[in-house]
Amino acid sequence: MGCKIACCQMEVTRDKENNLERAAKMVETAAQQGAELIVLPEMFQCPYENQAFPEYAEPENGKSVRFLAELSRKYQCILVGGSIPEQEKGHYYNTCFVFEHGNYLGKHQKYHLFDVNIPGKISFQESSILSSGEHFSVFSTSIGKIGVGICFDLRFPEQWIQMALDGAKLLICPAAFNPVTGPKHWDLLLRARAIDSQCFVAACSPAYHPTASYHAYGHSCVVSPWGEILHQLEEQQEILFVEIDLEQVAEVRQQIPILSADRFATKRK
Amino acid sequence: MGCKIACCQMEVTRDKENNLERAAKMVETAAQQGAELIVLPEMFQCPYENQAFPEYAEPENGKSVRFLAELSRKYQCILVGGSIPEQEKGHYYNTCFVFEHGNYLGKHQKYHLFDVNIPGKISFQESSILSSGEHFSVFSTSIGKIGVGICFDLRFPEQWIQMALDGAKLLICPAAFNPVTGPKHWDLLLRARAIDSQCFVAACSPAYHPTASYHAYGHSCVVSPWGEILHQLEEQQEILFVEIDLEQVAEVRQQIPILSADRFATKRK
Repeated sequence: MGCKIACCQMEVTRDKENNLERAAKMVETAAQQGAELIVLPEMFQCPYENQAFPEYAEPENGKSVRFLAELSRKYQCILVGGSIPEQEKGHYYNTCFVFEHGNYLGKHQKYHLFDVNIPGKISFQESSILSSGEHFSVFSTSIGKIGVGICFDLRFPEQWIQMALDGAKLLICPAAFNPVTGPKHWDLLLRARAIDSQCFVAACSPAYHPTASYHAYGHSCVVSPWGEILHQLEEQQEILFVEIDLEQVAEVRQQIPILSADRFATKRK
Repeated sequence: MGCKIACCQMEVTRDKENNLERAAKMVETAAQQGAELIVLPEMFQCPYENQAFPEYAEPENGKSVRFLAELSRKYQCILVGGSIPEQEKGHYYNTCFVFEHGNYLGKHQKYHLFDVNIPGKISFQESSILSSGEHFSVFSTSIGKIGVGICFDLRFPEQWIQMALDGAKLLICPAAFNPVTGPKHWDLLLRARAIDSQCFVAACSPAYHPTASYHAYGHSCVVSPWGEILHQLEEQQEILFVEIDLEQVAEVRQQIPILSADRFATKRK
C-alpha cells in the first residue's frame, strides 16, 4: 500500500507569524499534491537559539499547536509538526506534536539534548535551557505506526530500534543539523538508523538561511529500510515528495532478521 | 600515540594447511613493515560453509590457536586472529582468539549468528550448525582496550556501544560480507559503528575468491571515530596498513559527548 509523504524544508526566520504562514502554505501545497503524511522541520516557528526558546515557547494548548491541529484537519493529513519550544510545568522542551485529520495523536519531547562543543566550528548546549523528554514516541496512524525522534536523538541507535520493536515502520526525524556535522554525519546516520531499525526514515530540516545565527544543513531526506536514499533535497527551501510502500518493511525484516534476533530487546526500555 | 595496524585480506581456500601458511606469510610481511596490531579475517583457515565448520573445527588448545600464539610471539605483535570454527563442549562457535606477544588475551565467540535469506541472492543459516557466544569482548592490550565483534555482530549497534562504554577505543571486526549485502551495507555499517561508538573501527575480510562457494566481499577498511574511511582495500588479496592515533578518541568524545549522554548504558548488559 503506497503512501505519499512530504517533508517541508522551510526557511525559518525571527518572525513567528511569518514562520507559521510559510508552514501553512507549504503544508497546503504538499496536501494539494497528494501527500498523506506531511512533516515540518525542527523549531519551525522559532530561531534555533537558546535565548529564543523561552520567548517563542508555548504550552500544549497554545496557538502554534492549535494551528497544527487545524492544518491537519483542513488538509485531512497526518501532520508531524516538526518541533516548537514547549513550556510545561515551568520547564522548556523541544517538542514535536503529531495529528491526524485534526485529531491529536501525542507528542515527542526530544529525548537526547544537543550538547556539542567543536572548538572554532560549532558549540551549542541545549541542556542549559531545555529539559529532556522521558519517553520514546510511537503513534498509531491510519497508515500504520510511526516513530518520532528529534535531531540529536539520531545519534542513539537504541531509541530508533526500540521504536521499531514497538511497531513503527516509518521513523520520522525533524532535525536541524549544521554545516559542520551535516556533511560528515547526516546522510550516514539517517541511512544507518534505517538499516539498524529496518524502517523507512524521513528527516525534515529547515532550509539554509544566510542571516540565521545557527545555519541549518537542509538536505531533508527519505531513506528505505535497505538504507537507500530515495530522495534528498539540497539546502534551499523546497518540499520533498516521496511515495513509499510500508509493506517493504516486512520483506526486509524477513530477509535479514535483525529485529527478531535482537538480544537486547527486553532490556532497553 | 600512533599505532600502525594491518588487516590481512587473504584468500581462503579449502586447504587448511595452505590457509595457515598464507596467514603466516601475511602476518610476517605486516610485522616487517612495522604493524603493531595485525588482524586476520573471519574463518581464515576454513571455507565459509556450514558443512565445513565441523570438519575444520578445533578446540581452544588446538593447532590453529597454538599457531596464532606463536605468530604473535615470533613477531611481537598484538594478533586478532580473525576467526576459526571452535569446538567447545560439544558445540561449535565462530571464534576469534586474541594474543599479544604470544600471551593469550581471550576470545570472542560470535554473538549474533548470520541467518539471512534473500531469495535468489544469498541464503545462510549459521545457527543451524553454530552456537552463539554469551559475552561481549573487550581486551586490554599495550595500546589500550580493544573490542572485537564478528561480521553479523556489526548489525547490532548496542554491542559496539557497550564495548566503547567498557573502555574500548578501537573496535575490530573480522568479517565476511558478500557481494549482495557488501555494496549496500558494508561501508555504511562500519562508519555508523565508528560514529555511534566514537571509536576507530578496523574490519578485515577474506579476499574475493572466484572458486569459493561463498564469495567474500573484501573491502577491508579502517574508519576514524569521526566516521571517515582512512583506508580501504578492493577485493583482491592485499594487506591494509593504517597508522592511527588513539588519542583522537578522547577528542571526539569530548566534542560530541554521545557516550556520556547514553541513557541506556546501565541497562544494556
